[in-house]
Amino acid sequence: MVDEPYSVIDCDIHQFLPNLQVLYPYLSRARQEDLVQYGLRLPGAGGYLNGGDRGYRIDAWPADGGRPASTLEMLQAQHLDIYPIEFGILLGQDLREIPLLPDADFAAALATAYNDWMVEHWLARDDRLRGAAFIASQQPERAAREIERAAAHPGVVAVVGINGVRFPYGQRCYDPIFAACEALGLPFMVHTGGEGTLGQPTPVGYPSYYIEIRQARQMGFMAHLASMVFEGLFVRFPRLRVVFVEGGYTWLVPYLWKLDSDWRGLRRHTPWVERPPSAYILEHCTFTSQPMELAERARQLSTIFEWAHAERTLMFASDYPHWDFDSPETSLPPMPEEMRRRVLAETARELFKLPRREPARAASAPGATAAEQR
Amino acid sequence: MVDEPYSVIDCDIHQFLPNLQVLYPYLSRARQEDLVQYGLRLPGAGGYLNGGDRGYRIDAWPADGGRPASTLEMLQAQHLDIYPIEFGILLGQDLREIPLLPDADFAAALATAYNDWMVEHWLARDDRLRGAAFIASQQPERAAREIERAAAHPGVVAVVGINGVRFPYGQRCYDPIFAACEALGLPFMVHTGGEGTLGQPTPVGYPSYYIEIRQARQMGFMAHLASMVFEGLFVRFPRLRVVFVEGGYTWLVPYLWKLDSDWRGLRRHTPWVERPPSAYILEHCTFTSQPMELAERARQLSTIFEWAHAERTLMFASDYPHWDFDSPETSLPPMPEEMRRRVLAETARELFKLPRREPARAASAPGATAAEQR
Repeated sequence: MVDEPYSVIDCDIHQFLPNLQVLYPYLSRARQEDLVQYGLRLPGAGGYLNGGDRGYRIDAWPADGGRPASTLEMLQAQHLDIYPIEFGILLGQDLREIPLLPDADFAAALATAYNDWMVEHWLARDDRLRGAAFIASQQPERAAREIERAAAHPGVVAVVGINGVRFPYGQRCYDPIFAACEALGLPFMVHTGGEGTLGQPTPVGYPSYYIEIRQARQMGFMAHLASMVFEGLFVRFPRLRVVFVEGGYTWLVPYLWKLDSDWRGLRRHTPWVERPPSAYILEHCTFTSQPMELAERARQLSTIFEWAHAERTLMFASDYPHWDFDSPETSLPPMPEEMRRRVLAETARELFKLPRREPARAASAPGATAAEQR
Repeated sequence: MVDEPYSVIDCDIHQFLPNLQVLYPYLSRARQEDLVQYGLRLPGAGGYLNGGDRGYRIDAWPADGGRPASTLEMLQAQHLDIYPIEFGILLGQDLREIPLLPDADFAAALATAYNDWMVEHWLARDDRLRGAAFIASQQPERAAREIERAAAHPGVVAVVGINGVRFPYGQRCYDPIFAACEALGLPFMVHTGGEGTLGQPTPVGYPSYYIEIRQARQMGFMAHLASMVFEGLFVRFPRLRVVFVEGGYTWLVPYLWKLDSDWRGLRRHTPWVERPPSAYILEHCTFTSQPMELAERARQLSTIFEWAHAERTLMFASDYPHWDFDSPETSLPPMPEEMRRRVLAETARELFKLPRREPARAASAPGATAAEQR
């Protein structure tokens, strides 16, 4: 088992703008002038210090003073060519907060520019890369049109939204976005970010430290999941698939128990929710692995993976080039080989409808020995 | 095992004011007049429908049109005399949101009035009853004086605060409250409530349904726990004990894993946190059982109990007279007999320094057969 080749589909890679000027070809003269005058004024919860080297891997900062992962060559040399990555999903970085911009039209223009830049400068240049389209979810109808436009490129395999939006994603104002995703077969990805920008990041106000506000990621995911279930999102869009990225995984099973328990006592308020909440979530939602929690004992993580049906709910992500990057070789707990194969690649291949091909290179199977995997 | 007598210490019983007039003897003439003119205008997140019969057990509404659990006789007949309850901790009901009142002086006056009413009308009349002092945490120094005053009565064995406060409880403005609790040996209890009143109840805004905002309870507890650990509350107050009431329990273990994992990468921001977060939480915090989650399989709950060290972190609570009341006989999963004894009574006896005495009546041991408990 140990020497078997394996494939990785990395569901969370962040590529950077080398500078704002790269967006100009995709923006009107007026929007270019806005960027010249004011730069990119994306809102964010202020004052929290991150980890690593300015939030990233120390080795991700190029010697020439450039920005991490801001050229294809850097991404290839540091990540795509190091691991047997069959496909990597680009989720951008600099423009992630555009759904939080006050000016929804400016946000929509930036989303379009990002999508075109991603296609031309990244997807077209390495056939291992796929991308998720950014949207300005402030205007769901307009966002739906952008989804249709961006998805004309076959490398666009998903749509990505931010966690910390003003309303949870089950609320019906978002329906045009999910209608477009469902019609085009694109999973909607909810990526960590923006918690604390439009309102307090926890039910009890603003905490003091980054390590605390980081816990709001899972709180946001919990709120979105409850909203999606109890608003009947998956009843309205029975083929919709949603991916939750970078907000943890091990909380899922106790949360499903909690939702199912509460639903038994309270279901009369939402009679369209005919099955237990866990049934909808396990059918429609997947989660990415990074940052993978360490348990007290590795065997506990394996148990949680089994309870959570990780073979169909979990997909590997590295979060390259962030400081808390997870390696496909060391970040996952012991698990059965078939589950590992599905977590590392096969569930993502099905979800994003990616072809099967030879891995970039054959490598040793990652992680534990066969004996440890029992 | 099945026929062995057992004791219960119920850590969450809610008694009601029969009417506002009962508070008048404990209030100044001016405050009485405020209540006559305006009633009790406690703030709350509006528009959410609860469960059961107006939020309570159908049988808790007296035939004469009175309020649930608003006389000692009702509490005795429906609860204290039904189960072998050695002690029950009163956590009030009507005035729980006083820490959220805009007028902090009015809030402080109401806290004092509640505490005196509780002592005179409840604690003095049934020696199974103990109580937690209400405080107006808007003014921590004044709240500390009220803790000292109220704790002069031996039946006051704890202090209770609300979940949905403006700042998480680790922040240093609250220190006078925790200094008083520690000096007097009183656990500080954080009870569910107030989520969504002073700010959005989730990081992604206001959800639509009660079943959704109910999930903010655990989010608030998570935020308070992170705050207490990373602000160094347990370093400043090494003998402080905190109890989290009515916000779930099974999320605890994955959350400890998450905090410990993040702390490994980010501890340099809070160097006074010298041990893994789980070490502080397991040493200083306990949780109450109601509303107990149902797992997919009962054995999963037993596993989680074992991982969470339920024999020292979990205490039984019924939440009488709410609709989602938990019976000591049916709500807990299979567990070893010694663990069950500690969850039902012994951990609470140690924490609240309660004497040992004969149970009110001998009854069959609750729950599963000895075989099922294996």
